[in-house]
Amino acid sequence: MLKQDPFYTDEELSAYFGVSIQTIRLDRLRLGIPELRERVKKVAEDNINKVKTLGSKEIVGEIIDLDVGNLGISILETTSYMTYSKTNIVRGHFVFAQAESLAMAVVNAPVVLMGVANIKNINPIRPNDRLIAKAEVIRVRDKKHYVHVKINNKNHEQVFRGKFIFNEIF
Amino acid sequence: MLKQDPFYTDEELSAYFGVSIQTIRLDRLRLGIPELRERVKKVAEDNINKVKTLGSKEIVGEIIDLDVGNLGISILETTSYMTYSKTNIVRGHFVFAQAESLAMAVVNAPVVLMGVANIKNINPIRPNDRLIAKAEVIRVRDKKHYVHVKINNKNHEQVFRGKFIFNEIF
Repeated sequence: MLKQDPFYTDEELSAYFGVSIQTIRLDRLRLGIPELRERVKKVAEDNINKVKTLGSKEIVGEIIDLDVGNLGISILETTSYMTYSKTNIVRGHFVFAQAESLAMAVVNAPVVLMGVANIKNINPIRPNDRLIAKAEVIRVRDKKHYVHVKINNKNHEQVFRGKFIFNEIF
Repeated sequence: MLKQDPFYTDEELSAYFGVSIQTIRLDRLRLGIPELRERVKKVAEDNINKVKTLGSKEIVGEIIDLDVGNLGISILETTSYMTYSKTNIVRGHFVFAQAESLAMAVVNAPVVLMGVANIKNINPIRPNDRLIAKAEVIRVRDKKHYVHVKINNKNHEQVFRGKFIFNEIF
């Protein structure tokens, strides 16, 4: 199961197989499979070196798949630090930052600037969620890169979508 | 001059009057006028209590004018911490956060969520700049609040504009 999708949590595996979390942890240990956080980190480190447009610290979320010039996937774990105090909903600019930095990471150019973004928040985002963003390069024309981003929460509901245009500046 | 626009820096006043910064500082001291940072902070503290939709720590930038339901102005000082390492240009999500939080602050409703944002970056933003954002409520219909935001840099060049729609959720 983890070979196909390395991003199941121990909780999800435990629910899926109807066994305790302890059992899952022991089995992972026996099979030498690190915990989710470690698995994500490892994949993200492998991908970060592919990014041309950004420094590694400028990416919000962890890039778990990246095919520069084509598509990318990143994960962001939301925390209560990110929320509006009045509603306990994650603030817009954290999600925007995940989307924008992933969109920029997939662009195949040495240096770009974000020119336009049209975004839509579809469902409110709660803390302790896992946001999975997918960015796709739609077209490149006249040194403009058009990138679409969709973000789902861990229940596979779409929470955000955005269209970005990046301009090459050199 | 500072009565009309409290946001001139000592450097600007010194250039304007053709005197040294020392002279400006001594004159301010004599007239009991605090330095720019203190003036901004004081005005911002007075305004923060008017905001209905946000907690005070959730506002990016300092709100120096606020007429809830109508318009607001905020200032954000950019730093080198905010930039992309490759271009030394301020990252998009900092500017987005200033614009979005100011737009949300002017909305006259107890609780709202940002639904849609259409934004445009017009000129690259450098560190050590002073961004002046102006948000205006354009219309309110069916519990939707339409807010436009424009941001200028300290040379009065427009760097950003955005249109936001906020939805009342209670």
